[in-house]
Amino acid sequence: MALAARALGARTMYLEPPDPDLAERVRAVSARWGGSFEVVAAPQWKRIVREFDGPVVHLTMYGQPIDRIEPRLARASRILVVVGGAKVPSELYRLATYNVAVGHQPHSEVAALAVVLTRLKGVPGPRSWPGAQQVVVPQARGKKVVDRRRSP
Amino acid sequence: MALAARALGARTMYLEPPDPDLAERVRAVSARWGGSFEVVAAPQWKRIVREFDGPVVHLTMYGQPIDRIEPRLARASRILVVVGGAKVPSELYRLATYNVAVGHQPHSEVAALAVVLTRLKGVPGPRSWPGAQQVVVPQARGKKVVDRRRSP
Repeated sequence: MALAARALGARTMYLEPPDPDLAERVRAVSARWGGSFEVVAAPQWKRIVREFDGPVVHLTMYGQPIDRIEPRLARASRILVVVGGAKVPSELYRLATYNVAVGHQPHSEVAALAVVLTRLKGVPGPRSWPGAQQVVVPQARGKKVVDRRRSP
Repeated sequence: MALAARALGARTMYLEPPDPDLAERVRAVSARWGGSFEVVAAPQWKRIVREFDGPVVHLTMYGQPIDRIEPRLARASRILVVVGGAKVPSELYRLATYNVAVGHQPHSEVAALAVVLTRLKGVPGPRSWPGAQQVVVPQARGKKVVDRRRSP
């Protein structure tokens, strides 16, 4: 989830329960591949949802179709996407600005998040991210990675 | 991966190594929520890739941007999307019609598959699937599921 959020343009992941190991592993990915995405511990997640300065989009197969809600999100400069685990507190359905479904079948929170992020922001193109040590050069066949660190 | 493929409109998942328990769990989901998606054991995966009657799209962060390849897939009536695990045989890069990247950062095969399926097919709308026992009725708040089985 964290890597998909990062790769597809999210800025921050607020995580409850917190997971310092995960945050550290994601930091290692960013050190290598660039960008400033971070995983932040969020034991006070309800306050974050309540005080967020923009639409709060809770992803759930029981919500309204993404095709219907997407136009309302187009002009928002900041969006908080909320993804629950196995047990989502019913309160979240009330706190969210929109409860949104990416299809109405049981599937994967990662898949739903990826669809929403790419619908709103497109798929990031092949360019180096700020501070990256490595960058992929797209190939029709095989792999090409350029190391951007200068030799000493 | 199987549930995301099913929910977003794939017809069949060929799986190597085979996993009969997974196939059974997915059958249980389809019995409840409808549709004819199935997970098929595919120890002979190379033959399936070679003999497939349509474009073979291998998802990899090292491939060509999805924005560039997507137009070439628009008219295909059948597409085989190949998603590797941790170790992808290099042969796959040659066997694929296209090696396609959903972003060029490390992330999640499930996320990449979801983006490709919804780009090609859209997000399935809120309707009952053939044979479903249950169907979600989209709600702005809360959950509504209708049981479609008739009482005896």
